[in-house]
Amino acid sequence: MAGTDSTQTAAAPGGPAIILVKPQLSENIGTAARAMLNCGLTDLRLVAPRDHWLEERAFAAASGADRVLLAAKVFDTTEAAIADLHRVWGTTGRNRFMTKAVETPRQAAATMRSATAGGLACGVLFGPERTGLENDDVVLADTVLTVPLNPAYASLNLAQAVLLVGYEWFQCDAADTLPSMTKGAEPPAGKDKLVFFFDHLERELDACGFLRNPEKRPVMVRNIRNMFQRAELTGQEIQTLHGIVTELVTYRHRKGGSHT
Amino acid sequence: MAGTDSTQTAAAPGGPAIILVKPQLSENIGTAARAMLNCGLTDLRLVAPRDHWLEERAFAAASGADRVLLAAKVFDTTEAAIADLHRVWGTTGRNRFMTKAVETPRQAAATMRSATAGGLACGVLFGPERTGLENDDVVLADTVLTVPLNPAYASLNLAQAVLLVGYEWFQCDAADTLPSMTKGAEPPAGKDKLVFFFDHLERELDACGFLRNPEKRPVMVRNIRNMFQRAELTGQEIQTLHGIVTELVTYRHRKGGSHT
Repeated sequence: MAGTDSTQTAAAPGGPAIILVKPQLSENIGTAARAMLNCGLTDLRLVAPRDHWLEERAFAAASGADRVLLAAKVFDTTEAAIADLHRVWGTTGRNRFMTKAVETPRQAAATMRSATAGGLACGVLFGPERTGLENDDVVLADTVLTVPLNPAYASLNLAQAVLLVGYEWFQCDAADTLPSMTKGAEPPAGKDKLVFFFDHLERELDACGFLRNPEKRPVMVRNIRNMFQRAELTGQEIQTLHGIVTELVTYRHRKGGSHT
Repeated sequence: MAGTDSTQTAAAPGGPAIILVKPQLSENIGTAARAMLNCGLTDLRLVAPRDHWLEERAFAAASGADRVLLAAKVFDTTEAAIADLHRVWGTTGRNRFMTKAVETPRQAAATMRSATAGGLACGVLFGPERTGLENDDVVLADTVLTVPLNPAYASLNLAQAVLLVGYEWFQCDAADTLPSMTKGAEPPAGKDKLVFFFDHLERELDACGFLRNPEKRPVMVRNIRNMFQRAELTGQEIQTLHGIVTELVTYRHRKGGSHT
């Protein structure tokens, strides 16, 4: 797993800085750190947090993402926190009546990817929990970032806003990396094995009388085959099905036999 | 604002049910409810939650999404919670060594949009906070849902997992999706019908001795359920399977009877 880990960590170089402006609750800083590490982000910056923000509650909420918390940089002002960055987004759910480009997290992620590929450093500003970013902070951003959500109830928890931004940033690269079947899964069996099972099943269904109606038989056989066909059965699973049919039949014979 | 509210609520008809299996913390149920409403989802279902889950801490965490909490339905079993659904996803970060299709939240959202456009009811299972879904619950899902995240630190908070699923569902535009079934095809049966067939089959497999080894029984049952689960059986097909099992058994009894 070490190899996989380092590959994946390396897959997220130059991810955006996450800048929490005047966060009020240590828990939220911890949960944001956890969401960041979920998405391979590690550059956490805090503007004027409360005293003692790095307390036990922050670590409890970070749930193992301690290194992000411990490496967090603290600044007095938003200007100082973004001094080394080239492109900054300001997250806001409300209209600020400013003329400024707006992007969704998905659009912003694509912009970030190309900006970082071009050697530019990016960052995203998040405001305090209840009030959001002040207009003076929004002005410092190149682009407003707004999450399209149910407008009747669009208020996102701080850490969840961080998660959505980080998630989109991570997906922008990782979209194709997930296998389409569970890992380690056996591939579907060859069709010869499937047909061999069909023969077995239909022989027994003829014997017990399930297919006794000659007019309906072809359609019934087709429907039954279609069901099993669709399940993309593995060789092991086909063996199990053989076993089920055989046991039912053997038991029938055993039971029949015991009466003779 | 009332007009906007009703429009937006209407913009999310038939959104997936969010099913929390054995959630341990009231706060997480509340935060999940908040994340759901952010994304226009309201069908919250709880399987065997702790007593007193609907406590003050849940409402505090829901932060205004009270109506989702108050409308939550409680069930004793996962089977009961998904009985009226046609397509179910099971969220898991770990490999379960089962042969089952995997989708990302984005892929699942597209599938859900076309399924609901075709009149099918969808749902997503989320396991308990520390342990995740049990394998017996994963088996009941058609598809495994996995969020592509930093594999070095992929453990998502429960409410954040709910948020990502809801977020992708909300982002996905129904207009772009194709129906997932050929026109005229019968839709998959409700999960209640499938579970009822499982019960029938397993009762007969117990009777004939196929499941006689008590140590192997749970894995065998899981494997058998998984095969049939994957076939996306219609109601008619499930009837056929009932018929197959019944005929084999009836014939056995008839044959046994003829010897007495």
